[in-house]
Order: sequence, then C-alpha cells, then structure tokens
Amino acid sequence: MRKTIAIAALAAFALAAPLSGQDMPEPPTPASIVAAAPASDWRAIDPADLLVMTLAADAGGNPRQVVVQLLPAPFSQSWVGNIRTLAKAHWWDGTSVYRVVDNWVAQWGDGEDDEAKAKPLPEGMRVVAESEYTVPMSCEVYLFEGKVIEDRCIPEFNAIEAVDAYVMSGQTGFTAGWPVAMKLEPEGNRVWPVHCYGSVGVARNLSPDTGTGAELYAVIGHAPRALDRNIAVVGRVIEGIEHLSTLPRGKGDAGVYDDPALRVPIVSVRLGNEVGQLPQPQYEYLASDSASFAEYVRVRANRNDPFYKVPAGGVDVCNVQVPIRRVPSE
Amino acid sequence: MRKTIAIAALAAFALAAPLSGQDMPEPPTPASIVAAAPASDWRAIDPADLLVMTLAADAGGNPRQVVVQLLPAPFSQSWVGNIRTLAKAHWWDGTSVYRVVDNWVAQWGDGEDDEAKAKPLPEGMRVVAESEYTVPMSCEVYLFEGKVIEDRCIPEFNAIEAVDAYVMSGQTGFTAGWPVAMKLEPEGNRVWPVHCYGSVGVARNLSPDTGTGAELYAVIGHAPRALDRNIAVVGRVIEGIEHLSTLPRGKGDAGVYDDPALRVPIVSVRLGNEVGQLPQPQYEYLASDSASFAEYVRVRANRNDPFYKVPAGGVDVCNVQVPIRRVPSE
Repeated sequence: MRKTIAIAALAAFALAAPLSGQDMPEPPTPASIVAAAPASDWRAIDPADLLVMTLAADAGGNPRQVVVQLLPAPFSQSWVGNIRTLAKAHWWDGTSVYRVVDNWVAQWGDGEDDEAKAKPLPEGMRVVAESEYTVPMSCEVYLFEGKVIEDRCIPEFNAIEAVDAYVMSGQTGFTAGWPVAMKLEPEGNRVWPVHCYGSVGVARNLSPDTGTGAELYAVIGHAPRALDRNIAVVGRVIEGIEHLSTLPRGKGDAGVYDDPALRVPIVSVRLGNEVGQLPQPQYEYLASDSASFAEYVRVRANRNDPFYKVPAGGVDVCNVQVPIRRVPSE
Repeated sequence: MRKTIAIAALAAFALAAPLSGQDMPEPPTPASIVAAAPASDWRAIDPADLLVMTLAADAGGNPRQVVVQLLPAPFSQSWVGNIRTLAKAHWWDGTSVYRVVDNWVAQWGDGEDDEAKAKPLPEGMRVVAESEYTVPMSCEVYLFEGKVIEDRCIPEFNAIEAVDAYVMSGQTGFTAGWPVAMKLEPEGNRVWPVHCYGSVGVARNLSPDTGTGAELYAVIGHAPRALDRNIAVVGRVIEGIEHLSTLPRGKGDAGVYDDPALRVPIVSVRLGNEVGQLPQPQYEYLASDSASFAEYVRVRANRNDPFYKVPAGGVDVCNVQVPIRRVPSE
C-alpha cells in the first residue's frame, strides 16, 4: 500500500540567538559537530558489508589498500550479491585497475573487451534488470510543502532542505548514512542511491545491459549525477580513495591505459569478514536520523565560522559527505 | 540604472519528434554537439589571459605544464591584476606546489606560514576588499517565471534552467564561457563566479583577509560551492589539471606536505603572451550565447543517447563543463 500524506507542521528550526562579546561561543564547524557527537549517534558498519581491495605496492614500496562499503538493502542488492560472489571466489585477484579518467572515474576488474578472452565469471552470478536501479517506496510518505519529510519504509531518513538540479520534482536526503534521491510520481514513488565523489558503481556496456559487478569504478571527480538511475551504485570508498585518485590518467580510448604496464595489479579483494586476519576492519557512520547529523547538514549549508563571510544557505547532497570513521582497535 | 523586467514569453523548447526504424538519427551527445559547432560559435582566448605554469619534470622525466585561464572583467579583476604583477615579476619561479588535499584542492606559491620568512611580494600589489567577491548587475535584467533569462550587462549570458542548492532565490548560468551564479536582492542584484572542478582561487587566512593572489589553489574534487562569495575565484585550469590532481596527498596539517621533499618545484609561471617562445598558446571556448552552447547545455541535462536509460532532466552548473580546445598551430 502506497500512501502519501501531507502534514501541516514541521518542527520549527531554532537558530541560535546571536550573542555578543566574549560570551559568544565559537560557531560550530562540520568537524566540531562530528567530534562532539555522542557514541549513541554512531552506528557500526558490519565488516561483512566491506570490500577490502589490496593493490600492489607503489613505486616506493608503500602498501595500497582501498576499503569499499557496500550499499545496504533495499538498494542495488542483486549487483551487491554478485559482488559478494566475486569476492568469495577471489575473482578479482590478479586483475587490475585499468582505466583512469580525470574528473570522472578509476575503474578495475578484468578490463578485457574481447568476450572470448574475458576471465570467466564464477557460478551463481545473476543477470540484473535495469528496473533495480531504483526502489519503490511502498509505504507511508509524509510531505511538508511538497517535500518529503518522513518516509516510514526508508530507514533513518533525513531530507535535505535544498533544491536539487537532478530531481526537479523530487527530493534528496539520506537513509542509513547514504545519500539518495527520490521522486513522487503518478506511477509510484521511487528512491535511488546517487553518484557522489567516491561512489562505486557497476561499469556496463550499452543499454539494456546493466553490468555484472565484475567491472567496478569509483568516482574521482565532480559528482556525475547524470549517471543516477542509469548505472548501479553499489557502494562507496571509505578509506584509501587516494590510491585511485592519484593514479596516472589513461591515454587510450575512454581513458584505458594504452600501455599495459601502467595497469595497477590487484593483489586481492576480500569481504571485510573474510580478510583472514584479526581484528576485522571496524568502521562506523554518523546515523542519518541523529541530532548530530541534522546539525551537521545544517552547518554544511550555513557555514558561519570565522573563515566564512557569506553562508551559502543550501548544500547539495554530495557536499554533505557523511561522516565515517575507523573504530580504534582495542 | 537597475531595471528588472518580467517578460512573458520564452522561445518554446522543441523536442525532436520520435522517429522510427532506420530513419532515426543518433541522438546528440555533448561530444557530437561540440564536434559539429561551426567556427563562428567559438571565441578566441587572448594569450594575455593565460598563465602557463611549468612544473619540474616528473620522476619519469616527463614535462609537466599547467595552463590557467584568468577570469575576464568584470569578475575578480583586482586579484587578477595582482596575479599579472606576480607573473611579470617571475615571482612564482622557484616556489612550489606544497598542499594537496583529496577531493578538495592542490595549492601552490610560497607556502611559508611565518611572515618573517615569507618571500617578499613585488611592488604594485593591491589589497582587495571582500566586496569584490561579487559584482553588481547595474543594468537591465529580464525575467521569466522568476528566473533571469537575459541580462544586458553580463555579456553572452545564458541561464541554466535547473534549480541550484546554493542560490535558492537566484540563478546559475554562463557568461563569456564562465559559470556564474546570481541573486536578485532588495539591495541590488549581484553576480559572482562559482567554484567548479578545475577552478583556481586565491588562498587566504581568516576573514577579512582576502588574499593577495600569490598563494593559489585549483579545485581537484567535487565543486566546493560553499566557498562561493567567500574566496576569490580568479580562473580555471584549461590544460594539465592531471599534473595537480594526481599529486600525492599531503599528510601534514591541512594537507600540506610534511616532507618538504614532496613539494613540486615550480620552474616558471608566465602570462601566455610572455612565454618567450612562438607560437603563443592559442585556445578557444564555445560562446555561451551560441546555439551550439544552448544545445550542449540541453543535452547535458537530458542525455538520451544509447547509453542512457533515464535523462536527468536537469544539470548543475559545474557539470556543464564549458568546451575549451586548443587551436592547432598553423
């Protein structure tokens, strides 16, 4: 049952009254809000929802590890399932990062165009339909002035107040620590994960192919939001993005390395609960429905600490940058 | 004289009627529109408006050159004047790229925090007021449905139809090939250049310091639009951004290289008409008021070539990526 209910009241937003002189506290910054967030506002990320990608050491012998958090249900779960299958089969071991385009993506996997020569995929891979790029919201949605302010089926939902160029008649916000967009449409409300810096997606060929999940990319530039609903977002890099963003840009077609020697060998890709060493990688994110997160979004849109002269008054969903941190090992 | 006039008609936007079978032409892509643009839609960039920065060769002995186009009048001209003074004095020669932060900026100049040790600036540098972050629009502005569609004092103005999170009661668009934002405010209409990937800005200390132009940065991540009206945008990298975006990220405070050996030496910075060798660097941009540019923006917002399944229906000003190309030497 889909039900859209417009309600008439929204908790008034209390702006701090201006103080004067030496009593005036420092205005909060995104960093100060994150530092002050109580432990109860943080949620653990299950190591089973991580991909740990170990690249060959760099020219200086320094280790390179990239940690990807996979999208939780209800988003992109068929591709995420394929990715789990690939990781369990150690399929990426021995493949490479083979394509890097400035202000666009770094891409990895087999990278073989010729299907006859391509590395065989493991058993159990699913062919996924493009309908899964978005998810129906089949439950109660609460509106205020035409904007979604609460959605009872999308967990930890937190709407952003600013408008968004890519959902003219919709809404952006966060659910369970992930940036999403949604549209209220006559044929049914839909919600989908958006492409931001660091997002990981499923490379594919022309429509209606939706890709398997074997060839993945990470965004290393301005959010390519036109890809939303056109490619499956399956996760995001939460540590080690610099090992992808600093790689030399490819000079071949579409930014593929024309010189195979430039390919960066992938030593291994493992699910976080199968890395074979303890402790497993432990991270946590600032819960989207916490007071700290709401304040964090508000300050991102209204910086008034001493560096800033003019608060923007708005922020786009990709500039909110959901706080994620490593949990110190005990 | 400021005059705001609402007019009632806007050229109806003709979407191509669907064709069928083999008569259907390929839908245009941003690349195909740029390739088909007639010579008359391109405008030359004066070499005097370029900064050519030569970095030390990389570890493999490959040359590294970064070309920055400076903002034209009426924007940021006092800082741009300082930058011309610095380039003519060869002030940057022997300085370095000293700060690189992932998804943020690469910054260059003297990089000395201690004022007593800082490299002296040349004669003729101006102290610039923060009021120059924006420019008044003191002439006729035409509106349609509350949006600016024509501005008679901002040359080659081309408004973007999509909404923008950072100018809730304003407008984004292009003028003379540059992305800008504007607001119609009771105290007067203002317009300003925006921060996109590749934008070059003037690093500064805390307000009300606005920086001199000696310490510059280029954006190497998602557009940091909250900096708009808070830092002077003075140009953009039009060639060689990869020589900045691929640099190792700094591990010191604020991403400054803690190891001075990581600093990338700047061999020289020259204005494009003073590079000391012929031919001078020649570039051109697709004019904001050309039919080709209007079509380019439309397609950026509504990709329907075979790769795309769902056109976004909008585009943010930083994802339009104004076409700029090198003019082949004769």
